[in-house]
Amino acid sequence: MSKSPQAFPHQVAIVGAGMSKFGSFPEKNSRDLFIDAFQSMRSSIDKGLDPRDIEALYLGNFSSDVFEGQAHTAAVMADVAGLTPCPAIRVEDACASGGVALRQGVLAIAYGIYEIVLVSGVEKMSNLPTDKVTNALAAAGDISYEIPSGFTFPGFYAAMTSVYMHKYKLQTEDLMRVAIKNHQNGSLNPKAHLGITILDMMNKRIDSAKKKGKPIPLWENEWDFLRDDQANPMVAWPLRLFDCSPITDGSASILLVSGEIAKQFTDNPVFIIGSGQASDCPLHDRSDLSKIRATSKAAQIAYETAGVSANDIQIAEVHDCFTIAEIQATEDLGFFEQGTGYKMVEEGVTTRDGRKPINTSGGLKSKGHPVGASGVAQAVEIWEQMRSEAGARQVTRDIPLALTHNVGGTGQTCVIHIFERRY
Amino acid sequence: MSKSPQAFPHQVAIVGAGMSKFGSFPEKNSRDLFIDAFQSMRSSIDKGLDPRDIEALYLGNFSSDVFEGQAHTAAVMADVAGLTPCPAIRVEDACASGGVALRQGVLAIAYGIYEIVLVSGVEKMSNLPTDKVTNALAAAGDISYEIPSGFTFPGFYAAMTSVYMHKYKLQTEDLMRVAIKNHQNGSLNPKAHLGITILDMMNKRIDSAKKKGKPIPLWENEWDFLRDDQANPMVAWPLRLFDCSPITDGSASILLVSGEIAKQFTDNPVFIIGSGQASDCPLHDRSDLSKIRATSKAAQIAYETAGVSANDIQIAEVHDCFTIAEIQATEDLGFFEQGTGYKMVEEGVTTRDGRKPINTSGGLKSKGHPVGASGVAQAVEIWEQMRSEAGARQVTRDIPLALTHNVGGTGQTCVIHIFERRY
Repeated sequence: MSKSPQAFPHQVAIVGAGMSKFGSFPEKNSRDLFIDAFQSMRSSIDKGLDPRDIEALYLGNFSSDVFEGQAHTAAVMADVAGLTPCPAIRVEDACASGGVALRQGVLAIAYGIYEIVLVSGVEKMSNLPTDKVTNALAAAGDISYEIPSGFTFPGFYAAMTSVYMHKYKLQTEDLMRVAIKNHQNGSLNPKAHLGITILDMMNKRIDSAKKKGKPIPLWENEWDFLRDDQANPMVAWPLRLFDCSPITDGSASILLVSGEIAKQFTDNPVFIIGSGQASDCPLHDRSDLSKIRATSKAAQIAYETAGVSANDIQIAEVHDCFTIAEIQATEDLGFFEQGTGYKMVEEGVTTRDGRKPINTSGGLKSKGHPVGASGVAQAVEIWEQMRSEAGARQVTRDIPLALTHNVGGTGQTCVIHIFERRY
Repeated sequence: MSKSPQAFPHQVAIVGAGMSKFGSFPEKNSRDLFIDAFQSMRSSIDKGLDPRDIEALYLGNFSSDVFEGQAHTAAVMADVAGLTPCPAIRVEDACASGGVALRQGVLAIAYGIYEIVLVSGVEKMSNLPTDKVTNALAAAGDISYEIPSGFTFPGFYAAMTSVYMHKYKLQTEDLMRVAIKNHQNGSLNPKAHLGITILDMMNKRIDSAKKKGKPIPLWENEWDFLRDDQANPMVAWPLRLFDCSPITDGSASILLVSGEIAKQFTDNPVFIIGSGQASDCPLHDRSDLSKIRATSKAAQIAYETAGVSANDIQIAEVHDCFTIAEIQATEDLGFFEQGTGYKMVEEGVTTRDGRKPINTSGGLKSKGHPVGASGVAQAVEIWEQMRSEAGARQVTRDIPLALTHNVGGTGQTCVIHIFERRY
């Protein structure tokens, strides 16, 4: 009886987008980060914005109650940004919270509920010790079955990697290639948390050892560095430290308006023409760990809504919480055949000047992963790339269509958006 | 620039509604409670439901991450109810989470995003010790300023009560009248947590003392009981224990469908014709603590959307987290003049057979307050009353229009819905 996906009745235009610096900021709370992103978004609006015109705030946030002891997070943010009495709604779907908040805003504009909506995401994670962050993140799994059996999130994705390796002959070096590429992109992103190439990171460590008169590591290149159990320790076999996204503080915001009034804000909008979201069972109930079904399902809905196919997409920001996740995503989205995603990385297809650039921002891996903000920050990267404002990491050709892909937990939630630039 | 409220383009029909028993259930987690409510809702649908037809789940939940260590709550519930791959979205706005989830579902139907939506709320609170629950609830306040200064939620509402007393000469007995009335209603609600009148509670204590050979309390009536510092201890002056809603486990669900297809499910639907939501600053920034501004703002929007006024409403479920909150709500909603709400309680206007019955379910005070579920459970009561299915607590006249009022925190969020029965 479900309706099949149909084109949006109203055009959805992004007219502003911005983000805070991503990183570890002991002196900032989530309000500070939210305001940083909000001001960055505001200053990106070519013709300005009166915040009192905002009709609703959808805020992606995973767990400010656990991380900071602050819930009711959307209303708190609406107040600090001067948006009251506008409705403020916090949306939580684990690490897909930002993308799901974006979807609420997109649907609200697309179906005429509102004309001007703020979508934001925020997460302040670095104030807790790492083991407590790991526990907080475990709440995105199934705490009745999976977590008591000893799983953590690196463990979940390690299990997926093992199955993928067995099935498709992936080697650990294939994972490292994803990390190397994303750090190359992230090194060109001034907002990135780990905005440095792995080679530069290696050289810094060598320099530091020299200065301190310590034994100088015998790394000849980044591969030696990544294979070194000291420099890149095993977290959950076969995933090492540099296969994992970092624990990051950050926020991102975008302003969505109805296409009819977009010109009041900018002559250069980016449109969202498709959105899809799907849910799935927990990992332990799935028949195949080598892929994420919710990605394929959400993608199908998004493509049908937009009236495009995977091949039409020029660039994509995908959910690389772990290196394996990027490879799986590019397959589940239909960019590449199942089992071939890692070969495309090796062939350079997914680099900035490749045929299908993936995670030009640096991705969650290098840009950072403040979980509730990540899905919104992906849209910020697409906005910058489509408007040719991505600076040193700008893709050097037209980008009529792009995609963002945001995953919650082990893939119990997936949400996808499709962006259009009209040249 | 904001659009003024307008009638919904599509009719929004409730075709099923149900709830779990509210109470303290050490053996149940939030999944169990959710399934109890889901099955109760399903069995209320006159012509049946195939769960696979549900297009989206909006779940109100305040803090399952803190209470149970389980986040990603909406996807988890979608899985246990067999709803995957439908989009599952958790909505958090403190104690208004359920009402705000309801609003997302209502708007989705009203504007044609979906045709069949499940709205649920769930909270499992009683597994933590009371002081930890108090801390978890404090996260709904402003943790940068208010909580470090020593406020808890009883403290917030005590401050509001003090101001109200000073301004409008309310006495503590006026608060007790709200508790007495709501327990009378709740004693007729088989799903209520504290489904007993205060008089019966007093008599049970007397009987228990007699049986145990202990000194027999000298209470002659419920007033003696409520004024007794042992039986009804002070929590935060002037609020005593029986001015506070309990810590409750529970869940509630309603099925919303487009008016065009309502007849596929029932010949006896209830319609939602108005919805309003507003945010406000934290309590410490407000100029007047005797009222909740967000209630008035949200009500104005809901009334305008529905094309009705406060006087047109026959019954209402309002957010009586504390007795004072019910009195404030009936004024802020425009039912009674500011400063006169407590007099209307005294005059019996708000009893079941009064001119404006308030909280026929027993309210949060007696029915219980599983915070993320409360806003949805309010709609369940309206459904039963409007369909004349409320049993012993049925209001004995036609109810063409009703209202629900759900508050987050100290009123930083308020969300209101208006219901219509077409006779």
